[in-house]
Amino acid sequence: GAGADNDLYINQAIVFIEDAIQYRSINHRVDSKSLWLYRWYYSRTCQWILSLTITVILALAFIEEPSSLTVTSDVRFRLPAWNPPCGLTESIELLCFLVFVADVSVKSYLIGWKEFWKNKWLMAYILTLIVSLTDWIVSLSFFCKESVRLRKILRPFFLLQNSSMMKKTLKSINSTLPEMASVVLLLAVHLSLFTMFAMLLFARTKDNQQDKEWVVYFRNLPDSLTSLLVLLTTANNPDVMIPAYSKNRAYSIFFILFTVLGNLFLMNLLTAIIYNQFRGYLLKSVQSSLFRRRLGIRAAFEVLSSLKETPASAQQSYVSVEVLLQVLQRVQMDSRCKQAIMRSIKMCSCDQLSAAQFQKLFEELDKDAIKQHPPSPEYQSHFMQKMQFAFGHPYFGYLGNVVALANIISICVVLVMDADKQPSERDDFFLGAINCFFILYYLLEMLLKILAMGLKRYLSYPSNRFDGLLTVILLILEIATFAVYGFPHPGWRPELMGLLSLWDMVRLVNMLIVFRFLRIIPNMKFMSLVVTTLLDLVKNLRAFAGLLVVVFYAFAITGIMLFKGAVVPLGNTRKKKVISWCSAHFQAEVIYCLLYILSVCLICRWAKIYFVAWWLISSVIWVNLFVALLLENFIHKWDRRCHRESLSDIEYQRTVELMFRDVLEEPTEEELIEKLHQHPHLQLCR
Amino acid sequence: GAGADNDLYINQAIVFIEDAIQYRSINHRVDSKSLWLYRWYYSRTCQWILSLTITVILALAFIEEPSSLTVTSDVRFRLPAWNPPCGLTESIELLCFLVFVADVSVKSYLIGWKEFWKNKWLMAYILTLIVSLTDWIVSLSFFCKESVRLRKILRPFFLLQNSSMMKKTLKSINSTLPEMASVVLLLAVHLSLFTMFAMLLFARTKDNQQDKEWVVYFRNLPDSLTSLLVLLTTANNPDVMIPAYSKNRAYSIFFILFTVLGNLFLMNLLTAIIYNQFRGYLLKSVQSSLFRRRLGIRAAFEVLSSLKETPASAQQSYVSVEVLLQVLQRVQMDSRCKQAIMRSIKMCSCDQLSAAQFQKLFEELDKDAIKQHPPSPEYQSHFMQKMQFAFGHPYFGYLGNVVALANIISICVVLVMDADKQPSERDDFFLGAINCFFILYYLLEMLLKILAMGLKRYLSYPSNRFDGLLTVILLILEIATFAVYGFPHPGWRPELMGLLSLWDMVRLVNMLIVFRFLRIIPNMKFMSLVVTTLLDLVKNLRAFAGLLVVVFYAFAITGIMLFKGAVVPLGNTRKKKVISWCSAHFQAEVIYCLLYILSVCLICRWAKIYFVAWWLISSVIWVNLFVALLLENFIHKWDRRCHRESLSDIEYQRTVELMFRDVLEEPTEEELIEKLHQHPHLQLCR
Repeated sequence: GAGADNDLYINQAIVFIEDAIQYRSINHRVDSKSLWLYRWYYSRTCQWILSLTITVILALAFIEEPSSLTVTSDVRFRLPAWNPPCGLTESIELLCFLVFVADVSVKSYLIGWKEFWKNKWLMAYILTLIVSLTDWIVSLSFFCKESVRLRKILRPFFLLQNSSMMKKTLKSINSTLPEMASVVLLLAVHLSLFTMFAMLLFARTKDNQQDKEWVVYFRNLPDSLTSLLVLLTTANNPDVMIPAYSKNRAYSIFFILFTVLGNLFLMNLLTAIIYNQFRGYLLKSVQSSLFRRRLGIRAAFEVLSSLKETPASAQQSYVSVEVLLQVLQRVQMDSRCKQAIMRSIKMCSCDQLSAAQFQKLFEELDKDAIKQHPPSPEYQSHFMQKMQFAFGHPYFGYLGNVVALANIISICVVLVMDADKQPSERDDFFLGAINCFFILYYLLEMLLKILAMGLKRYLSYPSNRFDGLLTVILLILEIATFAVYGFPHPGWRPELMGLLSLWDMVRLVNMLIVFRFLRIIPNMKFMSLVVTTLLDLVKNLRAFAGLLVVVFYAFAITGIMLFKGAVVPLGNTRKKKVISWCSAHFQAEVIYCLLYILSVCLICRWAKIYFVAWWLISSVIWVNLFVALLLENFIHKWDRRCHRESLSDIEYQRTVELMFRDVLEEPTEEELIEKLHQHPHLQLCR
Repeated sequence: GAGADNDLYINQAIVFIEDAIQYRSINHRVDSKSLWLYRWYYSRTCQWILSLTITVILALAFIEEPSSLTVTSDVRFRLPAWNPPCGLTESIELLCFLVFVADVSVKSYLIGWKEFWKNKWLMAYILTLIVSLTDWIVSLSFFCKESVRLRKILRPFFLLQNSSMMKKTLKSINSTLPEMASVVLLLAVHLSLFTMFAMLLFARTKDNQQDKEWVVYFRNLPDSLTSLLVLLTTANNPDVMIPAYSKNRAYSIFFILFTVLGNLFLMNLLTAIIYNQFRGYLLKSVQSSLFRRRLGIRAAFEVLSSLKETPASAQQSYVSVEVLLQVLQRVQMDSRCKQAIMRSIKMCSCDQLSAAQFQKLFEELDKDAIKQHPPSPEYQSHFMQKMQFAFGHPYFGYLGNVVALANIISICVVLVMDADKQPSERDDFFLGAINCFFILYYLLEMLLKILAMGLKRYLSYPSNRFDGLLTVILLILEIATFAVYGFPHPGWRPELMGLLSLWDMVRLVNMLIVFRFLRIIPNMKFMSLVVTTLLDLVKNLRAFAGLLVVVFYAFAITGIMLFKGAVVPLGNTRKKKVISWCSAHFQAEVIYCLLYILSVCLICRWAKIYFVAWWLISSVIWVNLFVALLLENFIHKWDRRCHRESLSDIEYQRTVELMFRDVLEEPTEEELIEKLHQHPHLQLCR
């Protein structure tokens, strides 16, 4: 009947608007039951369960054997890690797999049979599940004693397929691969030619005294290749050159040429190529998000305009305001936006909305949320008004910064003075008394600010929240110290009583004070620009970080499998060499990986190939991607800063979409309509 | 009289046109005598003498005491360096100073008194000369035994002031300084906060076993600062973390946070800032060069149009073709351009040239020189024509590449087989025979190519010149080998006879063959793009390289002065640490500097400050400048490649000016005229 049809149309409109809000594709089934399933699938609970499952299956590696998750990493001291009994991790795995099976079934059903065959990600998902389940069965039939667990390497795929951002990024990286491969090929040619040169140059001579270079670095082809590859990472930079250099200074020309060509030119060329490819990446991705939003809104308009109630006019279709209000009531969206849209509808006095008006209403979604701070309290008494003026003034904040700086300096002075003293000689009286005074000042400052601004306004500023929280923690710590150790007095250095010793307490307080000093950041223009750039970058970097986790997880598991049981006591030098080579360039994010590498030894060739691959992917490619993104973000931000200097007072809640708003192109009506007619499940009347 | 006036005008026009060709400023005196002096000053001989003087005065440091220019850098083996007697280097210096005095006088006279006072560079030049001469007199009066030679640090200034490109670049860098300083300040804040954290975190405890971290890296404030500063350069990356990490894995969070923030974010931010500032740098500099050229041409037109012979028309001024031809005869310029301009004048049948026509004639200067290869010889005989077709075909070149590759592989195989053999066991017969065969093939290839293309055409390709030269050298070496050691036969390993042993000869031949293999580069598209980018970069980088020399020279001399006499035998470890810290990041260009640093020891504080300054300037700033330029060049080139794919057959002789031609803006007539009226010495009639 018409009522049921109308209900369906309204439901469709609701889902399409929600799709628009979340930047989702609208290419899914649109019958009543599917719509219910779709809303249920994308409900918070369902998505949360899915994320939890992915986290759990990834985290399993920490407790599965072989794992080395202990407090200390030193093999001599650490206790044997806990080994879960056979069947425990396996049953958790099975639960996860069942969730994934449900996930893939719902997803496949919702996009429909035809689309399913075009969607390679879904097929890969199913294949991964089949392989994993088979491996799981094999595992159980061997009572967990099987040597290779293939499914562990496949696990990061579940993380990958669940994020559209990560899939998009992977596609982008994929399109850069040919150019990257060319540079890597160039690097390989460079490396091999120089290796031949080196082997000819530093050949074995009769005089054994002069052979140092040959013996240590260029004994044979693999050794020479490794020496020069490590030189490319600059990890063995002076060592490899020194013997030859002290023989004859002219030998250094070889090393200089190699490093300048390889490190300065070719490596930076890689940065240039990746930056060049990624220059448009963010813009493109934001542009396609915008298209999805406009398309969802337009689709909602089209289904609403085909409602039976609406009088069909010959030329243009309209949507009645009443119906839209009805739809809006049931759409799940940010309440601020919803209210703003409602307000706009009421202000426009018309009964019917054209497509353009409809689209315009929803532009509220794209707008910055201008944050409004609650007003300060209005005091009656003249004295209170003066107080409010004094302590609400920015100068009071600056005074607080100066006091914090003084505190930092005093801690620094005490640290320098106490640097060489034995713990038993230390007297904490001075530091304790000073800190007591400063913490009282911080408390006073907080209270006066709350008095001047009112609690709500005070808490609406993030810097105040940071400040207040730390002040409260400091106060609690200080009270606890006094309760346990009494008030500071000369010779105040009692032994351990309770959870922490006095010395530890004081150290903790001092660390928090150093941390609290960071409140000065928003007061310095350039610093706050840098910090907001970094925060933006972190937002945009989530997809990259996810990919990094995927790659690292796969590498770590492969490493464990390859070098399992190869932990033999090695000469310390060699181990150290490996570690320094690995980490000198990728530095610090690798802790999870290092955790495994530290506990494995190198078994020659395989290990070398494994490490070179790891270096290429983690250090060279990922760091360059990072630099490219940073350049893109920073340059955009910088240009923007110069343009909008005047508007800097208003606090925008900036998102990536908003950053590019000036450059984005609105999709045309024709594009939208064409895309709508390509929808696999929606039959539009016209 | 009118004749003398006319002569003056013609001379002025000649000089203005020469200024335009060389992109020089036209703001100099324009009376007859000054013009003669000006042309003499900018003549090749004069400029050559000036450059030679600068080179000589800079090179003096190599022979002046203390110098360490010996073959080996090992203190145990090297002979004492030659110390020139007092008065030798000093008299050379005086000669150089006299040349500089002449230079500065001529320059000051030519730009005129008024301009002189505005020119800070000239004033600094004079000041430097005065200080240097005073220092020289002091030096002589102490019979070269004075302790400090201030004038040595001032020497690089003479290099700096002689290059307009370097002065421009310095100005550019100067304008980036505020932003760079902000980031360096951020780095300093980052470093000091983390140092305080570290000192609180890794404080001395009662248990001496657990104190490793404290004892080695965080004993007191300077030690902690140094440890973290070195961590910022990643030189001590795993070492500093390992003791704390093996105590408790959680300590690694501190190091990870420090490295990620400092190294990944702040350091790359510096790159972003410098890139952002330098994005427009090249374009701006080329734009101002274009303006100078147009201005010079316009000035020539204006003076020629005020010649008495020309009938003065009321509205527009004209230049007669005859006069222009007369001027052109006497202008020193590229003969190809001169002929092209003459041809254009003859083709245009008019007697008079308007300003626009005049300007248009000289656009020939901006054009690419399209290189035309001489034609191949035309053979009569049918057989010879077939030969010509076969050996002139690109496939013959590819065959040559394949043979070169085969040669490389054969050398590689022999190297791998011989890797572990004692020199006395080696048999050079196999390699000798193979190389003999390949070199014969190379000779044949060269001769056949010359036959097919004719000698002139053959030599007009740079790749052929490279190829042919190496083939000839190889042939000579091979003949010399045979002459001394006879033809290869099994057991061909005679001892040293003559200058080089057989083994050295063979090695040299092999190295040349590896080098010759580089001829494949132009055959690979991406490779040739990369190589041309690199070559362009080298051209654009001359100014930067000059600045680098200036900075390094000053640093080296300061280092010598600071650490003179401080060469005491140090523990090898400490010395090694310093070297690795210095070079791990700046890598290889520093050889000149390293030469001195290796021979000095560290005397605590001063040395630390010196090295930090050196690291900041050479590694951080210069490398970032380099990356910025590389990004700029590469991205421009890449875009261009995509646009002009079709034109790639024609070999352009590309200059920086041509690279940007599409984006350059022509200066307007008003701008030119306004600038001309501001000329301090030229009084235009109108």
